[in-house]
Amino acid sequence: MDVEELKGLDIEDIAEKIETMEIRGAAKIARAGVKAVLKVVEEFEDDDEEALLVELKKCRDRLINTRPTAVSLENGLKYMMKGIDDAENTEEMKKRVKNNYSQFIELSLKAKEDIAEYGGKRINEGDVVLTHCNSSIALGAIKYAWEEGKNIEVIATESRPKKQGYITAKELSQEDIPVTLIVDSAVRHKMKQVDQVYVGADTIASNGAVINKIGTSQVALCAHECRVPFTVCAESYKFSRETAFGDLVQIEERDPSEIVDPKDFCDVKISNPAFDATPADYVDCIITEKGIISPEGAYRIIEERI
Amino acid sequence: MDVEELKGLDIEDIAEKIETMEIRGAAKIARAGVKAVLKVVEEFEDDDEEALLVELKKCRDRLINTRPTAVSLENGLKYMMKGIDDAENTEEMKKRVKNNYSQFIELSLKAKEDIAEYGGKRINEGDVVLTHCNSSIALGAIKYAWEEGKNIEVIATESRPKKQGYITAKELSQEDIPVTLIVDSAVRHKMKQVDQVYVGADTIASNGAVINKIGTSQVALCAHECRVPFTVCAESYKFSRETAFGDLVQIEERDPSEIVDPKDFCDVKISNPAFDATPADYVDCIITEKGIISPEGAYRIIEERI
Amino acid sequence: MDVEELKGLDIEDIAEKIETMEIRGAAKIARAGVKAVLKVVEEFEDDDEEALLVELKKCRDRLINTRPTAVSLENGLKYMMKGIDDAENTEEMKKRVKNNYSQFIELSLKAKEDIAEYGGKRINEGDVVLTHCNSSIALGAIKYAWEEGKNIEVIATESRPKKQGYITAKELSQEDIPVTLIVDSAVRHKMKQVDQVYVGADTIASNGAVINKIGTSQVALCAHECRVPFTVCAESYKFSRETAFGDLVQIEERDPSEIVDPKDFCDVKISNPAFDATPADYVDCIITEKGIISPEGAYRIIEERI
Amino acid sequence: MDVEELKGLDIEDIAEKIETMEIRGAAKIARAGVKAVLKVVEEFEDDDEEALLVELKKCRDRLINTRPTAVSLENGLKYMMKGIDDAENTEEMKKRVKNNYSQFIELSLKAKEDIAEYGGKRINEGDVVLTHCNSSIALGAIKYAWEEGKNIEVIATESRPKKQGYITAKELSQEDIPVTLIVDSAVRHKMKQVDQVYVGADTIASNGAVINKIGTSQVALCAHECRVPFTVCAESYKFSRETAFGDLVQIEERDPSEIVDPKDFCDVKISNPAFDATPADYVDCIITEKGIISPEGAYRIIEERI
Amino acid sequence: MDVEELKGLDIEDIAEKIETMEIRGAAKIARAGVKAVLKVVEEFEDDDEEALLVELKKCRDRLINTRPTAVSLENGLKYMMKGIDDAENTEEMKKRVKNNYSQFIELSLKAKEDIAEYGGKRINEGDVVLTHCNSSIALGAIKYAWEEGKNIEVIATESRPKKQGYITAKELSQEDIPVTLIVDSAVRHKMKQVDQVYVGADTIASNGAVINKIGTSQVALCAHECRVPFTVCAESYKFSRETAFGDLVQIEERDPSEIVDPKDFCDVKISNPAFDATPADYVDCIITEKGIISPEGAYRIIEERI
Amino acid sequence: MDVEELKGLDIEDIAEKIETMEIRGAAKIARAGVKAVLKVVEEFEDDDEEALLVELKKCRDRLINTRPTAVSLENGLKYMMKGIDDAENTEEMKKRVKNNYSQFIELSLKAKEDIAEYGGKRINEGDVVLTHCNSSIALGAIKYAWEEGKNIEVIATESRPKKQGYITAKELSQEDIPVTLIVDSAVRHKMKQVDQVYVGADTIASNGAVINKIGTSQVALCAHECRVPFTVCAESYKFSRETAFGDLVQIEERDPSEIVDPKDFCDVKISNPAFDATPADYVDCIITEKGIISPEGAYRIIEERI
Repeated sequence: MDVEELKGLDIEDIAEKIETMEIRGAAKIARAGVKAVLKVVEEFEDDDEEALLVELKKCRDRLINTRPTAVSLENGLKYMMKGIDDAENTEEMKKRVKNNYSQFIELSLKAKEDIAEYGGKRINEGDVVLTHCNSSIALGAIKYAWEEGKNIEVIATESRPKKQGYITAKELSQEDIPVTLIVDSAVRHKMKQVDQVYVGADTIASNGAVINKIGTSQVALCAHECRVPFTVCAESYKFSRETAFGDLVQIEERDPSEIVDPKDFCDVKISNPAFDATPADYVDCIITEKGIISPEGAYRIIEERI
Repeated sequence: MDVEELKGLDIEDIAEKIETMEIRGAAKIARAGVKAVLKVVEEFEDDDEEALLVELKKCRDRLINTRPTAVSLENGLKYMMKGIDDAENTEEMKKRVKNNYSQFIELSLKAKEDIAEYGGKRINEGDVVLTHCNSSIALGAIKYAWEEGKNIEVIATESRPKKQGYITAKELSQEDIPVTLIVDSAVRHKMKQVDQVYVGADTIASNGAVINKIGTSQVALCAHECRVPFTVCAESYKFSRETAFGDLVQIEERDPSEIVDPKDFCDVKISNPAFDATPADYVDCIITEKGIISPEGAYRIIEERI
Repeated sequence: MDVEELKGLDIEDIAEKIETMEIRGAAKIARAGVKAVLKVVEEFEDDDEEALLVELKKCRDRLINTRPTAVSLENGLKYMMKGIDDAENTEEMKKRVKNNYSQFIELSLKAKEDIAEYGGKRINEGDVVLTHCNSSIALGAIKYAWEEGKNIEVIATESRPKKQGYITAKELSQEDIPVTLIVDSAVRHKMKQVDQVYVGADTIASNGAVINKIGTSQVALCAHECRVPFTVCAESYKFSRETAFGDLVQIEERDPSEIVDPKDFCDVKISNPAFDATPADYVDCIITEKGIISPEGAYRIIEERI
Repeated sequence: MDVEELKGLDIEDIAEKIETMEIRGAAKIARAGVKAVLKVVEEFEDDDEEALLVELKKCRDRLINTRPTAVSLENGLKYMMKGIDDAENTEEMKKRVKNNYSQFIELSLKAKEDIAEYGGKRINEGDVVLTHCNSSIALGAIKYAWEEGKNIEVIATESRPKKQGYITAKELSQEDIPVTLIVDSAVRHKMKQVDQVYVGADTIASNGAVINKIGTSQVALCAHECRVPFTVCAESYKFSRETAFGDLVQIEERDPSEIVDPKDFCDVKISNPAFDATPADYVDCIITEKGIISPEGAYRIIEERI
Repeated sequence: MDVEELKGLDIEDIAEKIETMEIRGAAKIARAGVKAVLKVVEEFEDDDEEALLVELKKCRDRLINTRPTAVSLENGLKYMMKGIDDAENTEEMKKRVKNNYSQFIELSLKAKEDIAEYGGKRINEGDVVLTHCNSSIALGAIKYAWEEGKNIEVIATESRPKKQGYITAKELSQEDIPVTLIVDSAVRHKMKQVDQVYVGADTIASNGAVINKIGTSQVALCAHECRVPFTVCAESYKFSRETAFGDLVQIEERDPSEIVDPKDFCDVKISNPAFDATPADYVDCIITEKGIISPEGAYRIIEERI
Repeated sequence: MDVEELKGLDIEDIAEKIETMEIRGAAKIARAGVKAVLKVVEEFEDDDEEALLVELKKCRDRLINTRPTAVSLENGLKYMMKGIDDAENTEEMKKRVKNNYSQFIELSLKAKEDIAEYGGKRINEGDVVLTHCNSSIALGAIKYAWEEGKNIEVIATESRPKKQGYITAKELSQEDIPVTLIVDSAVRHKMKQVDQVYVGADTIASNGAVINKIGTSQVALCAHECRVPFTVCAESYKFSRETAFGDLVQIEERDPSEIVDPKDFCDVKISNPAFDATPADYVDCIITEKGIISPEGAYRIIEERI
């Protein structure tokens, strides 16, 4: 569910859809988040700057708590707030927010397109590409390669507990790209047939660690063991400035009921971490819209925003 | 479902229950298999040795195809056939089969008990033990440690697609052992908290490779990366003599419908390998009833049967 | 012994205290060094620019040879010399040196504070942190975490031959931080209980190699083997510009008598290297006052000074 | 064969000498390439800007296809084209090309000299340095160390199929540097005696991968296994801007007859890849004229040209 | 050149052909060696036991020095001497030697056949198998797989300096097995396409180290890095009993002229080690006629002869 | 302090000398232990078998608790008890104990001699051998090599806290073997100069883990990282049968006062583990008197005693 489908929803609706993962994917939740902020100014009718600022911050704070791990949302919300503190009146404030919105959406979509191109060019004729979860940006690269006429195949992991791999499998098969679905446990067994791994990212830390869907780090480990390049596709706004100054990325622990009905498992603790961290050592490169870098160069991307 | 619950079932019933994994676990299917062979002699009423032999072999061949990866079943069936070729009459033949049956069951249960003890002693007070799938022999060791008063905790993986981890979690919680259920993808993320990994095995190859439930090899890889000892519990009849002479263990590819309903995924290939191979490098030791060995010593266990 | 305790000492005193390690720690010797240079201008009474310059350089050269491995001292001394060549008279020269002194001390102390904060935030509730030798900057991070109310524990290595670990242990226990002292050989044995390693640095080379107290590189190797993050705390003035242009860091070989009385060991050679080099591969991140970087990004920090 | 030996040759001569590897080495072919472009302007006598531009591009395109893997050539040719599009007349255009030529040659030779110095300083008294193929820039560093009076030894690999190792061995022995020639297969066996490996590069990718003569990556792997530092000497114009935007370095497959006479091997396929890619993980540092960096910092060098 | 082609040759002829590698391959030189001993008894006409014994030992000693690395020859010669010390007369002595000869040849050929079968069964349909040098026993396994109808491909390394890879390539192409010839340096570059590596061995040490043609250990390292199983085919008489009691395998240094004409390279040292040692860590299994073992189980094979 | 120096001591004296490490080294404490048992029978004057048995067991139990990690002592004591249960009278019992004593001492000394020879042969001319702690059996091998005329050098670690490295250094320098003493932290820094590591062992577990002086495992890790073979010298009676049946080797925690005076460190916990476990992965081979094996073959040595 991307930004064009959010019509008619109010801010709380959007926040909830992000929380329940109806709106999913680090780029999409960033775009939905900025859309929600836009709604604040669109719906605000008073002429009280203070009040608008309060509303904007309320909206931002509500959203920021929906998915603590995704820095893209936080960076998107920050982008929306650019220049509003010194706006002289509500009109000016609204104009700036709208402007910020247009720019962020454009930047976000352009980045996605560029990364698809850079990533797609790196996939070779005949490659078997494994992907984990459902990253629109990683799939963008895969589709780019396919559209360039390369004869490729994809292996998609199921991605328990939310099974986003089903969406991946269907999405690719709709484009006629040959795709095989496997359980998450079969990754190492299949890795010998794999030429490349492509995944997305929720957050990139300043030391190059990649925070992404739970399981990503063991896919990366299996790829590394087998000399299979592991590529991360991530727009520059997924790099976390805060990690450069000591903040640790908080790994979201989601509801047990996403795995099983806890009532059927009394006395069993159920742990459902939504993300894990892949160390830079296992990442061949990160494809950003600013170019392809080593993960160890992450600080360089962040530095530009410091 | 173990051997005492097979009353009233005929051979084909047993074979099917093994195929559908109603009877699961390498030791249990071996015991069920030998029980089926026992039924042949119990139900055979003629006095025709040739005919009995034919029946026995038919039964053996039917069973052997149910789960091609489990060498325990094959070894159990071989055990049942000991001495029948030179039996002088059906009485003698029946007696030998019954004898073989009693011996194999006793040996199998005694081995299970010994391994539980040896393995349980190696679990320390306060250990967090991760286990994959539902191995009665590995759980035997965990329970032994618990019963010795050690304050331990278990992390159980879900074990898609058949989710045997649910059985593990329930089985342990019934004994009041603290247990946490996780999805298979969360293994690497949790590994930092784990002190030991205990799993079972379906087959041990002569070079020490351990064939076990899909996902085992990536659990082992994650443990190895994190300096966590990875222990395999396996009776000596799970060691495959045939692998010493070039036979490769055949990895069973099970029905896609165990993962999803294929009708919902037309044009998506679904691959469902039931096992994978863990290289000896990632295995700290194999606990057998004959003692605890390095996986590289597997040939020594097999050699005794050559 | 930090800069405020140097009153009454002359330059040679300071140089000797650095040589004998009475003044220890890369940051402290840098601050002591710049203090010594300050003394030159404070005590210089003539009005002869040439003579003052000669004095300043003599002082610098005397100091630079005290501990060849510590680039912090060299960088501090360079900082003191900024702008003196084109000062128009001794007054101006003295003013600039005094100015440089104030700035360097402020920068040095502010960097220490910032790194303590960034590093402290990365230590989690309940962490066991291992540290080697006695780095005020690494201990700063540990104390920050403790002061934030995090319930942590420290393992301190003895750090033969000079046993700075005793100072570390006492310093932490005075703050009520639970601390365990071990011999250097016990690092790998204890590593399974460790969540993080924090150390300081004497010099960072342009390829990310970390030169620090002898033994650091094997602590790092043990951490790496065990998936324990290894964090280096280092102000940016510990990064060596010279290494970017081919200079190798010279590892100081200190007096055998720091280990044993050589007279008791005639015919035995005693080797006492004071530092070793930890390769970037084993370092999770370097915390600088400019942000947290991958060691492979060291050139970026140096580049700003080129 | 370097640029001063190209007198009397026309553009096609130069292109052919590059193709046949009579002119070899990434730096030399870049210099030969720019010389060829210079010849275009030197020989062009008309006063038609359009025509000159066509000639220049024809020359560039002819050259660029001679060795697709060497980005140095491409970068050199780009350098030659700087400012010609907006030149107001042929005179101006010629002047700019000549200017570009002088600058590129100077920059190239100065870079070579600087790298020799930085690299030479990093070789220690008594070191045994292994080198693969025949890189003038890596040999420059070795000779620098030797000329500084360091007592070193070199091991040179044969470097099949073109056996450039013979040239290396002779070139070094002419300078009286002790050198041992080995077959390419003996690298791992000899690595225990080696202190450092020095090689050149044809292209550096934005993620730090080093593309160099076939076999380089297995030399690097053997060095890494043995904790021997692996150093790459490469001018900044060997870093490929294109790889930062998705282009993959094309590995040149050269003629089978370089290995054997194919007529003697009917029904045998002969594969002759001229280069391979060494991952950043196995590279200790890259020595450029701008300073010594980690390979993971390659993007930083490229970024300056973006 | 195998045993049936040695007619008409005297002992010195055979020794020389082994030295010059006209007779090559650890198994073939063992068979040639025992044939030479047989010739001693066939040609001996006196009735003097002492004299015969002297002749036999002279022959043995001459042969044993031809290729010091190959334990197969030594073990073959030992086999020939079995029982001769207590033979009562020359007749008896001759009979025993002849008997030993027949047995050794039979045992040697049967082992080769068995290993071909065990090894061939482990090659899968569609596999790309890389082999180094020219091992009749490893090629036996490859041919077995091909003859079983498996659609396989082979990559053969050139194997400098003696280029036995040319023989391998021709031998396989004569059987219509698709084969690609590469230089030794291209192994790592090609490894991503390889499914298995099969090589022979000259000697197996008691700790599982495999001594084989120079370059084998770096092929093994490249395979290990890429998770490609590395299989060694070796008859049990290639396991060295002496290594279990401290003897080190002596790596033969062969004549420089095998690489280049030394006259063309004055002042260049040429080193030509003929073998290297592959550590057990990189070897998946050793296929012997007694079964397939882990290299770490080598002592078990040797123990039977102690 | 070896067995010949125990004259005049009673059992409690011997036990205390073992506890305080006046008698040190796994072989020596085994010999001292059996000597103590011998004293029981020598001093026993009654004719009461029961009473003698009680005395013998009391003595055994007293001794066994002195150093829980050393299986050699336990195995020696077991050896002393052979056949005493069914001795018909005290005379017979005494005779058997005396017999056992002579045999054990002979076996122990012969094993030491054999291992020195096998180990010494594996040290090459010119080798630099690093050793940790003070193992008479490892030093035996080093001295053997020296006595054979090999020009070798030794690096001896200090081995805190008891500094047995000082004894090693003096012992070797008395034999004129060039020896360099280093602190334990300098191992990785020196490893690049080391050709081999030789150590002893207190206990070998059935999976090949080597329990030896604290620090051994990090020496092994450093050697492994640097491709330096790590050799363990251990008599077969140091292999622990009990570990094959689940017993874990208990790591002795010795008195803090061996490190510092605890009174000077109130509120500091001091941990003083005396041993650590080196995994089989880092051990090249174990030299026993029965031959040289892979550590993974440890069960084979134990099996003979089961």
